[in-house]
Amino acid sequence: MEKQTEKRIAVIFVSQRTAEDADGYNDAAAAMDALAAKQPGYAGMVSARGEEGMGITISYWESEDAAKAWRAHPAHIAIQDQGRAHWYEHYHIDVAAISRSYDWSRHAT
Amino acid sequence: MEKQTEKRIAVIFVSQRTAEDADGYNDAAAAMDALAAKQPGYAGMVSARGEEGMGITISYWESEDAAKAWRAHPAHIAIQDQGRAHWYEHYHIDVAAISRSYDWSRHAT
Repeated sequence: MEKQTEKRIAVIFVSQRTAEDADGYNDAAAAMDALAAKQPGYAGMVSARGEEGMGITISYWESEDAAKAWRAHPAHIAIQDQGRAHWYEHYHIDVAAISRSYDWSRHAT
Repeated sequence: MEKQTEKRIAVIFVSQRTAEDADGYNDAAAAMDALAAKQPGYAGMVSARGEEGMGITISYWESEDAAKAWRAHPAHIAIQDQGRAHWYEHYHIDVAAISRSYDWSRHAT
């Protein structure tokens, strides 16, 4: 089943974790997920990280302005600094405007 | 360090695996990754799947036409049918035009 969703923004965050400080990282990541979800224009988040520490997180936003506001949030900036100091070997970010979306499920909804 | 990349397309594939047929899936996924890499306009791929079977794969393309051609590739369509029959509980796809990108690395390049 395919459906057209409203146009919105996907912020793709692809990262490689260091071996350092896994507990601090997990707590910070959970806190950021919870804070992001409270921001205006937040439209969801998905995340996966494999055994080798390579992870992908996608946050969805209703507008470019909403994505930029989250990027500039003071608590988010502070965590980004910690991420560069301790938690990431490298990361890549793409900001992208969604043109179309599709959903499929084994179970009818 | 931030850098502007050329404009291109990200196809975001978010999926939940079934418990079924892991070997068949792994072989098919590897074959599809290799075939995608040979397509005109292919610009890279990243993938992560967590322990709970939730995975994210992003394929990058130089143009919408290149992404659409891969979507319509007969071998890709055949594997998609197998995926719906056996390997996925549900999935979500977003096609998105990248407006800006950033890279950071702990090690200078």
